[in-house]
Amino acid sequence: MVGIIMGSDSDLPVMSAAIEICEAFGVVCEVDIVSAHRTPQKLVEYAQTAHSRGLRVIIAGAGGAAHLPGMIAALSVLPVIGVPVRSSALDGMDSLLSIVQMPGGVPVATVAINGAKNAGILAAQIIGTGDEALQQKIAEYKTSMKDEVDKKSEKLAKMKYKKYLNQ
Amino acid sequence: MVGIIMGSDSDLPVMSAAIEICEAFGVVCEVDIVSAHRTPQKLVEYAQTAHSRGLRVIIAGAGGAAHLPGMIAALSVLPVIGVPVRSSALDGMDSLLSIVQMPGGVPVATVAINGAKNAGILAAQIIGTGDEALQQKIAEYKTSMKDEVDKKSEKLAKMKYKKYLNQ
Amino acid sequence: MVGIIMGSDSDLPVMSAAIEICEAFGVVCEVDIVSAHRTPQKLVEYAQTAHSRGLRVIIAGAGGAAHLPGMIAALSVLPVIGVPVRSSALDGMDSLLSIVQMPGGVPVATVAINGAKNAGILAAQIIGTGDEALQQKIAEYKTSMKDEVDKKSEKLAKMKYKKYLNQ
Amino acid sequence: MVGIIMGSDSDLPVMSAAIEICEAFGVVCEVDIVSAHRTPQKLVEYAQTAHSRGLRVIIAGAGGAAHLPGMIAALSVLPVIGVPVRSSALDGMDSLLSIVQMPGGVPVATVAINGAKNAGILAAQIIGTGDEALQQKIAEYKTSMKDEVDKKSEKLAKMKYKKYLNQ
Amino acid sequence: MVGIIMGSDSDLPVMSAAIEICEAFGVVCEVDIVSAHRTPQKLVEYAQTAHSRGLRVIIAGAGGAAHLPGMIAALSVLPVIGVPVRSSALDGMDSLLSIVQMPGGVPVATVAINGAKNAGILAAQIIGTGDEALQQKIAEYKTSMKDEVDKKSEKLAKMKYKKYLNQ
Amino acid sequence: MVGIIMGSDSDLPVMSAAIEICEAFGVVCEVDIVSAHRTPQKLVEYAQTAHSRGLRVIIAGAGGAAHLPGMIAALSVLPVIGVPVRSSALDGMDSLLSIVQMPGGVPVATVAINGAKNAGILAAQIIGTGDEALQQKIAEYKTSMKDEVDKKSEKLAKMKYKKYLNQ
Amino acid sequence: MVGIIMGSDSDLPVMSAAIEICEAFGVVCEVDIVSAHRTPQKLVEYAQTAHSRGLRVIIAGAGGAAHLPGMIAALSVLPVIGVPVRSSALDGMDSLLSIVQMPGGVPVATVAINGAKNAGILAAQIIGTGDEALQQKIAEYKTSMKDEVDKKSEKLAKMKYKKYLNQ
Amino acid sequence: MVGIIMGSDSDLPVMSAAIEICEAFGVVCEVDIVSAHRTPQKLVEYAQTAHSRGLRVIIAGAGGAAHLPGMIAALSVLPVIGVPVRSSALDGMDSLLSIVQMPGGVPVATVAINGAKNAGILAAQIIGTGDEALQQKIAEYKTSMKDEVDKKSEKLAKMKYKKYLNQ
Repeated sequence: MVGIIMGSDSDLPVMSAAIEICEAFGVVCEVDIVSAHRTPQKLVEYAQTAHSRGLRVIIAGAGGAAHLPGMIAALSVLPVIGVPVRSSALDGMDSLLSIVQMPGGVPVATVAINGAKNAGILAAQIIGTGDEALQQKIAEYKTSMKDEVDKKSEKLAKMKYKKYLNQ
Repeated sequence: MVGIIMGSDSDLPVMSAAIEICEAFGVVCEVDIVSAHRTPQKLVEYAQTAHSRGLRVIIAGAGGAAHLPGMIAALSVLPVIGVPVRSSALDGMDSLLSIVQMPGGVPVATVAINGAKNAGILAAQIIGTGDEALQQKIAEYKTSMKDEVDKKSEKLAKMKYKKYLNQ
Repeated sequence: MVGIIMGSDSDLPVMSAAIEICEAFGVVCEVDIVSAHRTPQKLVEYAQTAHSRGLRVIIAGAGGAAHLPGMIAALSVLPVIGVPVRSSALDGMDSLLSIVQMPGGVPVATVAINGAKNAGILAAQIIGTGDEALQQKIAEYKTSMKDEVDKKSEKLAKMKYKKYLNQ
Repeated sequence: MVGIIMGSDSDLPVMSAAIEICEAFGVVCEVDIVSAHRTPQKLVEYAQTAHSRGLRVIIAGAGGAAHLPGMIAALSVLPVIGVPVRSSALDGMDSLLSIVQMPGGVPVATVAINGAKNAGILAAQIIGTGDEALQQKIAEYKTSMKDEVDKKSEKLAKMKYKKYLNQ
Repeated sequence: MVGIIMGSDSDLPVMSAAIEICEAFGVVCEVDIVSAHRTPQKLVEYAQTAHSRGLRVIIAGAGGAAHLPGMIAALSVLPVIGVPVRSSALDGMDSLLSIVQMPGGVPVATVAINGAKNAGILAAQIIGTGDEALQQKIAEYKTSMKDEVDKKSEKLAKMKYKKYLNQ
Repeated sequence: MVGIIMGSDSDLPVMSAAIEICEAFGVVCEVDIVSAHRTPQKLVEYAQTAHSRGLRVIIAGAGGAAHLPGMIAALSVLPVIGVPVRSSALDGMDSLLSIVQMPGGVPVATVAINGAKNAGILAAQIIGTGDEALQQKIAEYKTSMKDEVDKKSEKLAKMKYKKYLNQ
Repeated sequence: MVGIIMGSDSDLPVMSAAIEICEAFGVVCEVDIVSAHRTPQKLVEYAQTAHSRGLRVIIAGAGGAAHLPGMIAALSVLPVIGVPVRSSALDGMDSLLSIVQMPGGVPVATVAINGAKNAGILAAQIIGTGDEALQQKIAEYKTSMKDEVDKKSEKLAKMKYKKYLNQ
Repeated sequence: MVGIIMGSDSDLPVMSAAIEICEAFGVVCEVDIVSAHRTPQKLVEYAQTAHSRGLRVIIAGAGGAAHLPGMIAALSVLPVIGVPVRSSALDGMDSLLSIVQMPGGVPVATVAINGAKNAGILAAQIIGTGDEALQQKIAEYKTSMKDEVDKKSEKLAKMKYKKYLNQ
């Protein structure tokens, strides 16, 4: 099971992409709001019970001075995936650096700014390291992405770029 | 009393300037290493007992994805001063943004990158809001800074710049 | 009493969050426009009389090459909180660096870009170091933030994320 | 087994920290130089055979316009951990952005600039999701980090900061 | 012939400027979607057959962690022009650094963020090094740009700036 | 007389602020479009004849890789004021650095991004160094700015901030 | 006469280049240390008496949160040239933005980071707008720069690059 | 023939890598110092006669506010390759943006900061579009790069990483 948490419900429009992709891969996930700064005790409890509650990977999204992923990683043995949510002022650079620049000893697997979809895929890949059926689904997903590009490529070849742009 | 904490003993050469200035102002301080990522439980305990232990201000220094000041601020009613310690890779920009860009509700009073001296002065100013003698010392400190510039200014006027540079 | 000043009335939509939070905490504040560059004499007078007028903390907001907080700090023994107001061109990075990177000897307690609300809370925390009733209010504020997250968390658990997003 | 690759042997001083930590956790790893730009065919082959060769996680380090981690991730179902190696010109910001800002569909689990040690720990955590003994080792590693901080904390308490700095 | 490729059909509104300018210069071009991360095999094939298929220059546009231009350059002897497509989060800085900061041995001729028009002109200039008629067209294009500025200059001189702004 | 030039008529909405302020100070100015990259010969001629044509200061505005101010400065003995026009992609940082970072020997007096108004004031100040009447006007302008702030300050004091915001 | 001031005597090694170039042009200058933050009253007095003391241009250098040039500009009608002195932490970007991003109404003529030499040349150019002999010297200086490049060019042509590098 | 120019002889240690690689490919090149800001007339002449003098590609290196490549591109129909030379203050970001962010109509083929070697290779690739023997040499160069990596890969496999690091 994957735990998907975010610092605020304002992060949900971004983080929902992680939920959707987990569902698409059949990876069970639980979703919650855990704020490092407003509910620090819940953060501690969440991280400390994560393993025993059956979570295998945690996805944590936050913006600005984003401390949620790193603090969860400090308190759990599980792999933690961090999603830097784009902030209003600095284009997400603050979120990214606050999450990715962890000190030696406590990694956070960071994805792109607003990259919640990739966080979900990465969680599936991690669980897939011990689950061949899931790995097969990921392989199929990669094929479907390729097929989608191929279709667009054919369509572009047929329509030529001007029509393609105006469709 | 001021609590001065840092994420690692490698921050001590920077943070010692905060200790020195507190001592110079006669402000009692306690110094400790509290790592958000390696000793998260100690962080929680430190913050939760800070007020009752008699601390009135907390200075917290950390570098990189610097979560210590913000997490302390989340867990205590005391004013928290954050010192972004210059990191090896990104010149301290990661430390600065991780500390200053706190979400609404949980402020960290951030000083300059490696600005531990100013963190100490700020702590004295905060305590000084209720302590006229201390405020007087701060006023004297300001005068001493002015005097030092004045002396250098006179010396420069006398020596001319070439001699001044070569002294 | 807290003095809240800003460089231009165009900063008022941002800075009003500081006024509101002071009012919410019952901290008396006076509000004024003081421009470092257009009313430098008023700046000097404001800073020099701040203490004797009964101010205990000053909140100063400004954008771009933001000199107001630092110049006030140069001229007063009071703790000065700086609010970097988001500028039109560089996303507030210029405001932030102009305020936070103060030289040794003259601190400005800097909050996030557009972080006026946190400036107000920080002012309350500073005054609260000598006022237990106020500190109690800050503790209650922290609890109310926690409660708000808890309610959203419960709602999300009940509604599931899709409904929550579409509400 | 973990595959650890890097774009150039000049990355080895950084990447060796990943090897060491894998060895410390008893995680078998193979090490190779695979350059996205100088040996692109080897890159393709490496990625395509990684799963069948028994790799479960791949750690890829590169600097500058760092394409190795992302291209490996494009060609394999395995989770890929990217290490942005600090570049000579832009302080590693180019390496970081080239690795972390992957498009939707193809994640790279990015760690800090020069964060090879954390890449190794993250690989162990990933394999540990299906290996309780390894998870136990990670828990012990966390404890040892805590103990190390505690010892330094005690030493600092005894020696006071000036002696500590001069030791 | 010039090959114009892009990582996604969402890049087409930007990249169409390269197609248009090629057409304006009478330089034949083929257009396709080739995704480094979703169709890596197609990328390899495209690059390896480019020369024998009669391409003389390749223009590749991509955004975010933009690996397409550099990987094409790794696999072909042809000159490769890279167009950093403006990304949603970091204003195109990630695209630019991912493309321009190539390691020694594998150049990508990088143009401005969203500079697809210039990529087309550069392709024409490159082919023009062996085609005087094309070079003549480029010279005429430069003259036409000059003429356009001259006309605007005259118009501004006549209308004065206020009318010019309000036209 | 002040020469006001810009790289493109698309810069006119920004640069018109320089024209207006010159007119307000009674400083005669001529306005033209001179593109460093599309009309380089005109640039050379403009710069070389500027002095003899009676210009005393040149204001040059440009965006992106903004070479106009620096090239004019290379070719004329007159003081050149550079206005970095905000670019579409990088928020004007490219314009600013292209203009301000001139090598030793050839200064450009750079103002803020889109700071055309200040360019006009600076031109007036420069001419004012030899024109007391003009200097007097600048002094009056400063007073008028102060008066404007004072009026707003009084209004804010009367209306209180909520009404002020809603007016 | 040109006033050359700096925020600290630690800026003198950089600022001395402005003094030297003024001396080379025969432009009389006075040199002083004026700290915006440590001697704010001196700053006010310096700026307010500058004009009547006979100064015609002021060069002000400062680093970090560099408020000296802008505050002088706020208080004087004279043109003010700002020199962003390279700071220890952020490579001078903080100094540059603190100086160049002045609000409308109060310009600072900003030169490159550590560009004190150009500040001196610009001051000479400004005074030269009313002094043909000085303008002639600037023209000669430009010629001497050209001659120096020409000599190096000839030398390189004769020696070839390898010898030139090893000389 | 390739023209290799640079803004200052201080750029020669960087730019010599372009000369060496041209020589290695048997591409004739001429080398000169042409300063956009100190020898603007020479720049104009160089660019205008480049084509008729037999140049087919121009490589131009410069640092800081680097205008040389763009101005050459404005004045010649030849493809111009720009090398951003790393500047002392801003790590080469100013050089890069000044060169790459050219406006529509006038491209500069920009390589990495200090990427002179790649500029030489790119010049060879451009000339190679009409010269099969040269293209063959480039193919061989690519093979030699691959071979070099392969050798290091084998050596690393034999020596193991610790010995490899200590050799």
